[in-house]
Amino acid sequence: MSTSAYLELTQRHQRLHRLAHLQSIAQWDQSANMPAKGNEARSLALAEMGGLLHQLATEPQLKGLLERAEQEPLDAEQQANVREMRRAWRAANALPQSLVEAKSLANSRCEHAWRTQRPANDWAGYVENLREVVRLARQEANFLAEGSGLRPYDALMDPYEPGMRVAEVDRVFGDLRQWLPGLIQEVRAKQAGETLLRPEGPFPQAAQKALGLDAMRLMGFDFEAGRLDESSHPFCGGVPEDVRMTTRYREDDFLPSLMGTIHETGHGRYEQNLPRDWLGQPLAQARSMGLHESQSLSFEMQLGSHPAFAALLSPLVSKHLGAQPAFEAGNLNRLLTRVNPGYIRVDADEVTYPAHVILRYEIERPLIEGEIEVDDIPALWDAKMMELLGLDTRGNYKDGCMQDVHWGCGLFGYFPCYTLGAMYAAQWFATMRRAMPDLDARIAAGDLECVFDWLRRNIWLQGSRLETPDLVRAASGETLNPAHFKAHLRARYLA
Amino acid sequence: MSTSAYLELTQRHQRLHRLAHLQSIAQWDQSANMPAKGNEARSLALAEMGGLLHQLATEPQLKGLLERAEQEPLDAEQQANVREMRRAWRAANALPQSLVEAKSLANSRCEHAWRTQRPANDWAGYVENLREVVRLARQEANFLAEGSGLRPYDALMDPYEPGMRVAEVDRVFGDLRQWLPGLIQEVRAKQAGETLLRPEGPFPQAAQKALGLDAMRLMGFDFEAGRLDESSHPFCGGVPEDVRMTTRYREDDFLPSLMGTIHETGHGRYEQNLPRDWLGQPLAQARSMGLHESQSLSFEMQLGSHPAFAALLSPLVSKHLGAQPAFEAGNLNRLLTRVNPGYIRVDADEVTYPAHVILRYEIERPLIEGEIEVDDIPALWDAKMMELLGLDTRGNYKDGCMQDVHWGCGLFGYFPCYTLGAMYAAQWFATMRRAMPDLDARIAAGDLECVFDWLRRNIWLQGSRLETPDLVRAASGETLNPAHFKAHLRARYLA
Repeated sequence: MSTSAYLELTQRHQRLHRLAHLQSIAQWDQSANMPAKGNEARSLALAEMGGLLHQLATEPQLKGLLERAEQEPLDAEQQANVREMRRAWRAANALPQSLVEAKSLANSRCEHAWRTQRPANDWAGYVENLREVVRLARQEANFLAEGSGLRPYDALMDPYEPGMRVAEVDRVFGDLRQWLPGLIQEVRAKQAGETLLRPEGPFPQAAQKALGLDAMRLMGFDFEAGRLDESSHPFCGGVPEDVRMTTRYREDDFLPSLMGTIHETGHGRYEQNLPRDWLGQPLAQARSMGLHESQSLSFEMQLGSHPAFAALLSPLVSKHLGAQPAFEAGNLNRLLTRVNPGYIRVDADEVTYPAHVILRYEIERPLIEGEIEVDDIPALWDAKMMELLGLDTRGNYKDGCMQDVHWGCGLFGYFPCYTLGAMYAAQWFATMRRAMPDLDARIAAGDLECVFDWLRRNIWLQGSRLETPDLVRAASGETLNPAHFKAHLRARYLA
Repeated sequence: MSTSAYLELTQRHQRLHRLAHLQSIAQWDQSANMPAKGNEARSLALAEMGGLLHQLATEPQLKGLLERAEQEPLDAEQQANVREMRRAWRAANALPQSLVEAKSLANSRCEHAWRTQRPANDWAGYVENLREVVRLARQEANFLAEGSGLRPYDALMDPYEPGMRVAEVDRVFGDLRQWLPGLIQEVRAKQAGETLLRPEGPFPQAAQKALGLDAMRLMGFDFEAGRLDESSHPFCGGVPEDVRMTTRYREDDFLPSLMGTIHETGHGRYEQNLPRDWLGQPLAQARSMGLHESQSLSFEMQLGSHPAFAALLSPLVSKHLGAQPAFEAGNLNRLLTRVNPGYIRVDADEVTYPAHVILRYEIERPLIEGEIEVDDIPALWDAKMMELLGLDTRGNYKDGCMQDVHWGCGLFGYFPCYTLGAMYAAQWFATMRRAMPDLDARIAAGDLECVFDWLRRNIWLQGSRLETPDLVRAASGETLNPAHFKAHLRARYLA
């Protein structure tokens, strides 16, 4: 009996999935549970597993198996699965081992030093390490570009947002950049006259946790297939069968944790609802980082900042934190939609957030492609912060170009995903409103299921069956169209 | 350069240790955290890892490497490490794959059905599955016996208590069996006149957890290298660098959780204090299950039921659960030393517990060696319960021979470890009292460190450097001597 190459590949991916399961749970545990002295042994164990998974993903037989499978008579889903297997194989085999190791060393050195350099505002120290990180990232980009025929930045962006290209990002960000600063001014002027009541803390952690769990229930999270814990950097990890979300609590303010939890619930439900029958195969993976972010932002922003949603949230907040005038639905919504340009991306509101992303994209794209150097970053940062948000960041590196962990870790090509996700999310809701003209009334009536159902059918259950542009077209009838994001912001913030 | 076979073996064991780390954390998580729907994927992931670890432990090159390493010039510790590598290799390679798979299938079928058969008191249903489990356990015992020259039951006991033999168990249990039923009667008569105040609940779970954590601090647990969580079956898992203890809470009684936590802390400190420089090598592993139990029982029984210890525990109990007359030190100690023959082994007190173990040993040893059949179990159980504890168990299978998970899981040869552990623990304390005649005064003064220090030097830091009888002799000047256990019980319960 001649074994099908396709069948053998599916078995190998199943095995990778099972071993990666243990890696994923151990990583979650490292952030959520592990005591300090466990770290060294855990890091060594995870490195051992990382090496093993890489070895399994680069076994020499895979090349021939993929070539044979691509010739076998397969149905459309199987073909899509092979396409994604090929993508995973290319990614695993893309870089020479020496470059992988040099990057790992330079990135971890730079990131480790950054942890103390950032609070010390030590740009001069940081830039020395960053120079090497960027040199290797350029080498990686050029290496990948040669192999794929893509331009260097496209080659770095592709693993996070497959198929997304600089030309497309320039198109949509170019549009956004034209109207965003003006819109921020308009919204600020409009909100200047609003009365805003501030919630009065402290808000005990146990009460915040109970509130977060209720919010997750409201958002349909399946607690039989996941849980909520704490970590210093919130994330959504685990495995599709057992999603591990984390949050952190500040006793002086409950909104960051609450809305962060709602955000991660969007990621979590995407994972929980990937196609069950295909779990373990590349076809069952989430489509891209931008698509993933479109789910978390559908939850946190499209729904979370919706005026009718505040009326659903308000009784939960009062139930767990005690009644306050500030928790009244109208005021709660004003708190959640307050626009206020600030230095820090992760603290930014829905309207100013894209400015932070555009700024980073406009620096990292030319940096990777050799048009600027690391020494040019601060001046560019200052100029763009002034231009986009009207803020002076001169000399303030720690709240400026040193605020993110990404670059120090060698992570280039990822930032656009945040705003692509916000645009996709706006496009999903525009599509839903065409199909359900009474969508806002339904939300007001507490019928969130109609939203979840649309996302489940059009995004979650699709996994990686389609390439991103095809998925976007199948879901919404058109490719990525930034007009929906603009219309969403104008409707929500200026109507 | 010719590589040393010993060096290569250490690297292979290091790798096994790192991968087993992930397995261990994922198993702990499965019991302590995992939601229901995660179970199938977790079980598959753990099975995949189990298969991988078995494959690595049975690689054909190991045979030659071990033979070469045994000829290399090594120091005493390295030689001991090779001896333990050889032991691990023999265990991994002992059984044909077909028998391993048949056992796994029969055991999991029997255990799964037992979960509902036990509450239904369904011996007739259980025995059908048990018959196959015993048939395969006998096959295993005979197979191992042929390979090792041991008698069949010895071959099953050896992985848990290396070097322990039926002849030795018969010697020490035979002695115990002579005087235990009489001693139980004497103690019962003495305690009949005692006044005993019962604590009044409920005891909220959060307060019990805080009390348990304080008790762990009292017992010296290192919270930077471990934690306490909850699971339905308490255990001590994780890795030496990060020990994961679990307990469970009953709101109507705090003593089971408190003393269970102190018990697991003994296991936990053994693991936390295994020789650090050798972690990852077989030499650094705990010596045996009996030795492990000797640590948990040193904590729970030798210290935990010590009258002076109750005076240390009493203020902690009052602090977390509120003051009650029942928490006064003398009464607390009477509660902790109350002797009461009962049906259930896991609920048994220090004095009656060995009777439960002797009974099981006297049934499973002849069962494995073909002298009796599974259908003989209930009658033997009834007779021995009457003889040893004066209890009638006729027809009550669920609280009789169906109460333990062990046999249904194919676990034969393990039961003796519980009582061997109790005997070792008594021997350690007898030795300590010779070296420190003021031991009891020190304990009364809260100086538990002198106990921990002795255990650390004589047991924990020894790992598997010595074979068990050598370790026992090095620590206490003699081999296992049940007279110490008898003297301990008489001193504590009849003085």
